[in-house]
Amino acid sequence: MNTHRYSDAERDAIYRVIAERRDMRHFLPGPVDAEVLRRLLGAAHAAPSVGFMQPWRFIRVTDPGLREAMHALVEEERLRTAEALGDRRDEFLRLKVEGIRECGELMVVALMDGRDGHVFGRRTLPEMDIASAACAIENLWLAARAEGLGVGWVSLFDPAALAQLLHIPPGAHPIAILCIGRVKNFYKRPMLEAAGWEDRRLLSDLISENCWPVPDSGTGGSLE
Amino acid sequence: MNTHRYSDAERDAIYRVIAERRDMRHFLPGPVDAEVLRRLLGAAHAAPSVGFMQPWRFIRVTDPGLREAMHALVEEERLRTAEALGDRRDEFLRLKVEGIRECGELMVVALMDGRDGHVFGRRTLPEMDIASAACAIENLWLAARAEGLGVGWVSLFDPAALAQLLHIPPGAHPIAILCIGRVKNFYKRPMLEAAGWEDRRLLSDLISENCWPVPDSGTGGSLE
Repeated sequence: MNTHRYSDAERDAIYRVIAERRDMRHFLPGPVDAEVLRRLLGAAHAAPSVGFMQPWRFIRVTDPGLREAMHALVEEERLRTAEALGDRRDEFLRLKVEGIRECGELMVVALMDGRDGHVFGRRTLPEMDIASAACAIENLWLAARAEGLGVGWVSLFDPAALAQLLHIPPGAHPIAILCIGRVKNFYKRPMLEAAGWEDRRLLSDLISENCWPVPDSGTGGSLE
Repeated sequence: MNTHRYSDAERDAIYRVIAERRDMRHFLPGPVDAEVLRRLLGAAHAAPSVGFMQPWRFIRVTDPGLREAMHALVEEERLRTAEALGDRRDEFLRLKVEGIRECGELMVVALMDGRDGHVFGRRTLPEMDIASAACAIENLWLAARAEGLGVGWVSLFDPAALAQLLHIPPGAHPIAILCIGRVKNFYKRPMLEAAGWEDRRLLSDLISENCWPVPDSGTGGSLE
């Protein structure tokens, strides 16, 4: 008997939100309620962080001119990415990859400056700072889904250009443009899966036991 | 009226698990039920990933000798980190930083090899692969809390040495040793906060509007 287990109804809610969260690129107009936004940011701030460094910083973008400038930055990178994709260029260009102009709330998440002073858990894995901030974004994303709001994480931008636009100092590092807002419908499946960009992998193919999976060695799928 | 919003009870459950999740280092003995573990991995696999690349790979460590070897790797890095911390050396060494020997289930999470082929959303931000895998780990972590199980993310290891131990090929990259299992009690506060290692920052200090916060400029805390 595990007394720490939540009720079935609570567990169902948690698995439901994990299953129904989507990376959204289509939004309805209209602002996000300030109290809801505060709850979302509170959820983000409750995330784990390596050495409890809490590296996440949130910049709300409320200035329409800045929003336009950010859209332009993303559009520039979208075209560069398309060129880098070679024979998948046209397929990529047909995808909707962001909702910066339409979403109710636009936010940038950046890693704080001065991270070099945080050695605990990062001496050999310095990237644990972005890992921590990603956990914060996932918390926000799940909370938003429960609030009925969509979130899209846009990473199609030049971080140096975005840093310049928002006066982010040297040493700090923007990692996400978050589009947050009301949506008409949540996608039934991830949009890139539905569009045929990538297939959903079988979970059993991603699990192995005691060593990296060797093809056809029988080490994979030990739980299936 | 937002028809996508969950019921109050469901939202409460989701905010509850976000608030009560902890980075655990103390565990009770005993295995994790296979069906529960499958649910946790399913939650991880439902995470968002850049370009839907699904970069996460899970290696269950069931071999006691490997577990011991992993403990030794972490102990080695713990001592190196202590030296690197200088005047916080002794304070650090008094902390319990992992539960590798005690936890019911031990797992390594690694980024897959061949990630260079995934350009979508990563041309300028290649670290979006670890960000995606961190979202997967956060999903697993939250689901585990709802199941009444503790999770600890240990990043005190040399990734090259761990890769060698588990035959992880060049190009793949281990990012986490996850200790999963039953616990006597969940910490009321993050252990590093309770131990005085770092203070919890005020959320209002982490939010600014339209630019990086300038001290005393009034750009911070626009939601408070």
